[in-house]
Amino acid sequence: MTVYADNAATTKLSDNAFNAMEPFLKEIYGNPSSLHTVGQIAKEHLENARETIASSIGANPREIYFTSGGSEADNQAIRTAAYQGARKGKKHIISSKFEHHAVLHTLNALEKEGFTVTLLDVYSNGVVKAQDVENAITEETCLVTIMTANNEIGTIQPIAEIGKICREKGVLFHTDAVQAVGHIPVNVNDMYVDMLSVSAHKFHGPKGIGFLYVKSGIPVKNLIEGGAQERGKRAGTENLPAIAGMAAALKDAVDNLEENAKKVTAMRDRLVEGLKGIERSRINGDMEKHLPGTLNMCFEGIEGESLLLLLDMKGICASSGSACTSGSLDPSHVLLAIGVPVEIAHGSLRLSISEYNTMEEMEHIIKTVPQVVSYLRSISPVWEKITREEK
Amino acid sequence: MTVYADNAATTKLSDNAFNAMEPFLKEIYGNPSSLHTVGQIAKEHLENARETIASSIGANPREIYFTSGGSEADNQAIRTAAYQGARKGKKHIISSKFEHHAVLHTLNALEKEGFTVTLLDVYSNGVVKAQDVENAITEETCLVTIMTANNEIGTIQPIAEIGKICREKGVLFHTDAVQAVGHIPVNVNDMYVDMLSVSAHKFHGPKGIGFLYVKSGIPVKNLIEGGAQERGKRAGTENLPAIAGMAAALKDAVDNLEENAKKVTAMRDRLVEGLKGIERSRINGDMEKHLPGTLNMCFEGIEGESLLLLLDMKGICASSGSACTSGSLDPSHVLLAIGVPVEIAHGSLRLSISEYNTMEEMEHIIKTVPQVVSYLRSISPVWEKITREEK
Repeated sequence: MTVYADNAATTKLSDNAFNAMEPFLKEIYGNPSSLHTVGQIAKEHLENARETIASSIGANPREIYFTSGGSEADNQAIRTAAYQGARKGKKHIISSKFEHHAVLHTLNALEKEGFTVTLLDVYSNGVVKAQDVENAITEETCLVTIMTANNEIGTIQPIAEIGKICREKGVLFHTDAVQAVGHIPVNVNDMYVDMLSVSAHKFHGPKGIGFLYVKSGIPVKNLIEGGAQERGKRAGTENLPAIAGMAAALKDAVDNLEENAKKVTAMRDRLVEGLKGIERSRINGDMEKHLPGTLNMCFEGIEGESLLLLLDMKGICASSGSACTSGSLDPSHVLLAIGVPVEIAHGSLRLSISEYNTMEEMEHIIKTVPQVVSYLRSISPVWEKITREEK
Repeated sequence: MTVYADNAATTKLSDNAFNAMEPFLKEIYGNPSSLHTVGQIAKEHLENARETIASSIGANPREIYFTSGGSEADNQAIRTAAYQGARKGKKHIISSKFEHHAVLHTLNALEKEGFTVTLLDVYSNGVVKAQDVENAITEETCLVTIMTANNEIGTIQPIAEIGKICREKGVLFHTDAVQAVGHIPVNVNDMYVDMLSVSAHKFHGPKGIGFLYVKSGIPVKNLIEGGAQERGKRAGTENLPAIAGMAAALKDAVDNLEENAKKVTAMRDRLVEGLKGIERSRINGDMEKHLPGTLNMCFEGIEGESLLLLLDMKGICASSGSACTSGSLDPSHVLLAIGVPVEIAHGSLRLSISEYNTMEEMEHIIKTVPQVVSYLRSISPVWEKITREEK
């Protein structure tokens, strides 16, 4: 049995998404910017996909800019606000300590360019306080960027509340919604967001495609200069096969959102039930304001990487945190941000499930994780020390 | 009969490329950055594709950075050199007047950031003189960027000669090889290039993928910040399906390069033979130093756009220039750069063919173009004026 429990890293492409892509990988291969029939047929499909995508988040098609994925969208959103801010002499940005690196590293780059960045606390429950955002806003603030749901621990942020504050104060508000879209309701109007980043392969769409929503009226700054694609704001021949796949996957995800969330939540709850009794373990992040499919735990006295490798040998694919930082020996910045001590943060496990998983698979996980944790502790000097001190 | 003669805009995905992609759109869906088996299998395929691609241009796999396409690669190459240059106080860049907009618009952006740009002449034959590059290099020059082959007129530039000069002078040299790779021999060592941009969909690979070659030892500047993918230099989950498709298409293109070039050249020569007799027409650019498949002509007294629309009605898909600038009413900057008068540049036609075309299709083009040109001239006041003045 192979149990894929790493859906926050990437998901299997759905059959519907594949079928939506296939014609554009075969017969309908025109360049949507070409004037001839072969191009214009492609163009029509491109704009249909844009409409499907826009309506799924309550946006206007003209507010959707296709990108190569969530990271590019995050970079472009932040650069857009920074560029506009710099022109007005406003060079202060507010974010949080547990954002994705696509946000944090872009902010690092901007600091080197003279911007000041305030990273808000996320507290032990993994949730940003809207009041903290309000308190941090100054006359110099040009952007607030807070993720909709965290990629490692799954906690959902009070986006509408933050959005309202930003709009009242006249500050641009961006949210990295990469983990949220397709999993929880996302509507750009209800959330008062100005910019929102999405990646298709997190909801059974294809890799290499995503989009940036930018509220009408906000001047978009190019990240990639060149041709006149995407109304001159994102150069490069449009990746129609992937865009069509993304539209199909997003439509499915939104149409079946409640049903999938119910199914996935039931599986996640069973996992919590089955794993929470493990001695000296903890569940990270508030479980109420939470994505349906993500469960992040820490087990004292063991290394997350060893845990993953042994689980893998037992057919369970999971992660210790973000796939984007794998290979790094540092503990997760997300877990440190919510106050998990360094030595415990090293023993983290993220299980992220989707509607493709089954309850039978959950039982396999519930049976296997305690065995593996037990084994690793039996050979762990750290665990020996912990238990010796206890006696 | 539909004749697709716009292969410089985009090409049909090859069956081999599709077949190479399919497993990664289905079973092998892991995130190459994940540590578990599903991820590591993906990672292995990713690195195999990188090796195939590297060896096709004489590079080391560690010198290949996957991007979302040629435009992104151009942007990143230029930003890499500009960043390095700025640190040393060198803020002068040399390029040519007929580069792709992915290069020219990035240079425009850099000018606003305090860089000085010299755009070299390309003369009536559409070829840059290496001596002009040498003459333009100053102590402040941090980059020379000259395309390998022009996308509108197909002329090939003396890249090796320019590369040698740049290396001797210690100036970084980038080439946009988007139209060249897969069509003419490209070897990064023989060409003395430091950076080289490639796009897959120009050689029957998928859209939305390309790569940047950067010679070992040159510090790459991120365009997209975030995760640790591509050795920390290009964030975003790796688009393995497209990368695998690109590798397959590139291998095919390189393996069959001579044979395809022979076939395509024969068709192109037949087109030249059949169309050159049209009254008051001209072929743009040197036909010796030239890509096999591209033919660019101007017909006095008509509008390129009307020509395209009528050709389209007769089943011929062509373009007036770059698809990336379609919708613009300005004449091609490439044709203006080689000295074509504005009023003639408006009547341009680019026919770009591939090994998927047939000689029968060429005959259809040869029969149709003169008819359409004739008809458009019969209703053109401009043409009436030209012929009246002649009498």
